[in-house]
Amino acid sequence: MKKLSLEPYKGTRDFYPEDMFVQDYIFGVMRMVVESYGYQEYDASILEDTELYRAKTGEEIVNEQTYSFKDRGGRDVTIRPEITPTVARMVARKRKELAFPLRWYSIPNLLRYERPQRGRLREHWQLNVDAFGIDGMEAEKEMITIAYDIMRAFGVDDKKFVIKINSRKLVNYFLNDYLKLNKKQSYDVSKLIDKKNKMKEKEFRGAMESVVAKKDKVKKIVKFLRAGEVEEVGWVVKRVKKVEKGKNGKRGDETDGIEKVKEVVGGLKKLGIKNVVFDPTLMRGFDYYTGIVFEVFDANPKNNRSLFGGGRYDDLVGIFDVEKVSAVGFGMGDVTMKDVLETYKLLPEYESVADLYICLLSSEYANFAHDLSGDLRKQGLNVAVDFTGRKIGAQIKTADRQKIPFVLCVGEDEVKSGKFKVKNLGSGEEKVADQAGIVRIIR
Amino acid sequence: MKKLSLEPYKGTRDFYPEDMFVQDYIFGVMRMVVESYGYQEYDASILEDTELYRAKTGEEIVNEQTYSFKDRGGRDVTIRPEITPTVARMVARKRKELAFPLRWYSIPNLLRYERPQRGRLREHWQLNVDAFGIDGMEAEKEMITIAYDIMRAFGVDDKKFVIKINSRKLVNYFLNDYLKLNKKQSYDVSKLIDKKNKMKEKEFRGAMESVVAKKDKVKKIVKFLRAGEVEEVGWVVKRVKKVEKGKNGKRGDETDGIEKVKEVVGGLKKLGIKNVVFDPTLMRGFDYYTGIVFEVFDANPKNNRSLFGGGRYDDLVGIFDVEKVSAVGFGMGDVTMKDVLETYKLLPEYESVADLYICLLSSEYANFAHDLSGDLRKQGLNVAVDFTGRKIGAQIKTADRQKIPFVLCVGEDEVKSGKFKVKNLGSGEEKVADQAGIVRIIR
Repeated sequence: MKKLSLEPYKGTRDFYPEDMFVQDYIFGVMRMVVESYGYQEYDASILEDTELYRAKTGEEIVNEQTYSFKDRGGRDVTIRPEITPTVARMVARKRKELAFPLRWYSIPNLLRYERPQRGRLREHWQLNVDAFGIDGMEAEKEMITIAYDIMRAFGVDDKKFVIKINSRKLVNYFLNDYLKLNKKQSYDVSKLIDKKNKMKEKEFRGAMESVVAKKDKVKKIVKFLRAGEVEEVGWVVKRVKKVEKGKNGKRGDETDGIEKVKEVVGGLKKLGIKNVVFDPTLMRGFDYYTGIVFEVFDANPKNNRSLFGGGRYDDLVGIFDVEKVSAVGFGMGDVTMKDVLETYKLLPEYESVADLYICLLSSEYANFAHDLSGDLRKQGLNVAVDFTGRKIGAQIKTADRQKIPFVLCVGEDEVKSGKFKVKNLGSGEEKVADQAGIVRIIR
Repeated sequence: MKKLSLEPYKGTRDFYPEDMFVQDYIFGVMRMVVESYGYQEYDASILEDTELYRAKTGEEIVNEQTYSFKDRGGRDVTIRPEITPTVARMVARKRKELAFPLRWYSIPNLLRYERPQRGRLREHWQLNVDAFGIDGMEAEKEMITIAYDIMRAFGVDDKKFVIKINSRKLVNYFLNDYLKLNKKQSYDVSKLIDKKNKMKEKEFRGAMESVVAKKDKVKKIVKFLRAGEVEEVGWVVKRVKKVEKGKNGKRGDETDGIEKVKEVVGGLKKLGIKNVVFDPTLMRGFDYYTGIVFEVFDANPKNNRSLFGGGRYDDLVGIFDVEKVSAVGFGMGDVTMKDVLETYKLLPEYESVADLYICLLSSEYANFAHDLSGDLRKQGLNVAVDFTGRKIGAQIKTADRQKIPFVLCVGEDEVKSGKFKVKNLGSGEEKVADQAGIVRIIR
């Protein structure tokens, strides 16, 4: 028989207890922050009918970047590449029963079929935070505040990251109405803008020209993308404002986009979040965003990458043929966050879940150890007993290598006297104690 | 466009906050108990190379009951139907680095392709508890004690469940050496025994006869399966003991099996676990068990079903071409456990994660609410703010329907005075308090 592979499936990870400890720490901090804002956890299956993704995601993703297959009943099934379509489906499913606004979160594992690379694996976990039923910009402000609070709760200094904000409406207006690009061109331009940071200026302009065909349009695009403050794209508005005013006097999407960026950026600064800027190049990959989008970037100039992001997607729940629900959310991946925390040395050191390891001088004390450990557990200690029958040194070494903080050995003396030497394996300190004393020492 | 389905994929579940609350409660109790025994959490990807299951599981399961497909690179991939092969792979992968004995647990989601029915879904979660590197029966006793403790921690009276114990070695010996069945016959007989409880006596005998061909062998099998105490199958041993003794004087598997059943059943009774019995009909579905197997049954005569189980599987790590590691473990599914706890009314009532809901008389108080809620969060409260701008009654109704225990409203008076009416939505009681007072009331 062929030798079996010991490795996990390509692009996925094994989580040994040390890895799980890190994962638990990261999820624990995320949970603590989002729950402090009253967000409730939800989840769903990793499998969904493929039509769910066909209906809403950018085509690229449905076709090439998902794990999709037919089940034995001939049904098209996809392993979730993201959970937003699922949560939209769930909200739509109970559209009439749920008490809005909803504040929901989840930390699902997601799978994408792509070449594994640093920070991008085939399977990752992602905190998803979503609020449904809040139309105003307070929702965006809360989302971004939560994202900010999570970064700070991890101990990341706010000089080390930047929160970039854009308006999908403003961008759509600029591309479709101002530049009058057709649908295909708009889509291609926004994909190009998405990749801008990975391209050289000349290469970017060249690619842009081949999409929009006209040089003056490329110039406008470049000018638009260079704006450092949202006020600097006012020129996009002015022209059209007149036209719109002439027609019906209503504000258009471009004005709305600019106003909302101002409101969010200004509002966050008022709340004490200073590292927030307008960035017209910010597109976000998915095409369901309808309003403000935001993304958190590593501010390290050597590693200026996107860490995570989100935005408003008011139309997604509506695709299920139920009454629309406004929605704002973001997703934060574990692989990237772990990488950031490792870089800044912000991960805690591994600790065993066990408080105490009981070693046995002979297996005849097994029942005694069963009773002793049972009593200690009742008092809240986590206790493992070594039943291997190995030499005492080997038993203690196991505790040490597994980073269990305390150890005690049971032999004839201990059974008779009811007194135990409790050793702190970190400091080497030993204290003699009875049962109650063990609990006191370890606490 | 075709109307999108609102339902989850067949045989899977959506977990709305209320469902997630139950799931979290169940997992929380499981975690608390296994961690008190010093078990460390691990996890892995939901995808594995298909060869992992081909190499070890009963054929039936690999071929028909898994989600298996080819990835875009032509690799055979399977969504894990169980995590035991994975954990064996992980132990084998770090065979030389790990400090044994290991106490590990995980609560993975698992997928099987089968017709959904009560208590059996296509996707479920399963607590898996495994100890590696303990050869003696203390490992079995610990496993079963943990299983027992979890049931008790859920509040299930020990009269409501029975722990059945058998020895795979004893059964194998009986079928292969005593009855001299061939491999195929043994396999078919053990599958039949597995289904015995779902068959009528006559039907069972008939099926058995068509497998083993000889009536006297069927009689022996029926006699074997009727034993209520392990001592009653002594007749299996005696004959062979002589033969074995004549050859090399060593104890055979049958004696070993009987002795170990005695040791485990007797040992558990000594530790205070009385609802434990020998049951020769207990087979367990998977074919990797090598020693003691056990299963916990609902003792309700109207619903006498298997709840969960496990056993010893000393040979599994060895299939990876590394030095053998002894192993004992069990798996406990969430669907079955939830069903049991519902039946016995042992599930807690839903509680919102939010402690307090702040309603706004006008959106002009949004920033004030941001600050107030921020301060309360720093003091450990989970606080949600209603930013919808709806009428105050609608806001309070949301809190009530979401089962948030406390509510307060912010208007001009509150902003000026710094005093708030904190209402307990359960009792209807209202108290006036300043910020510090809010925390005291809610705690």
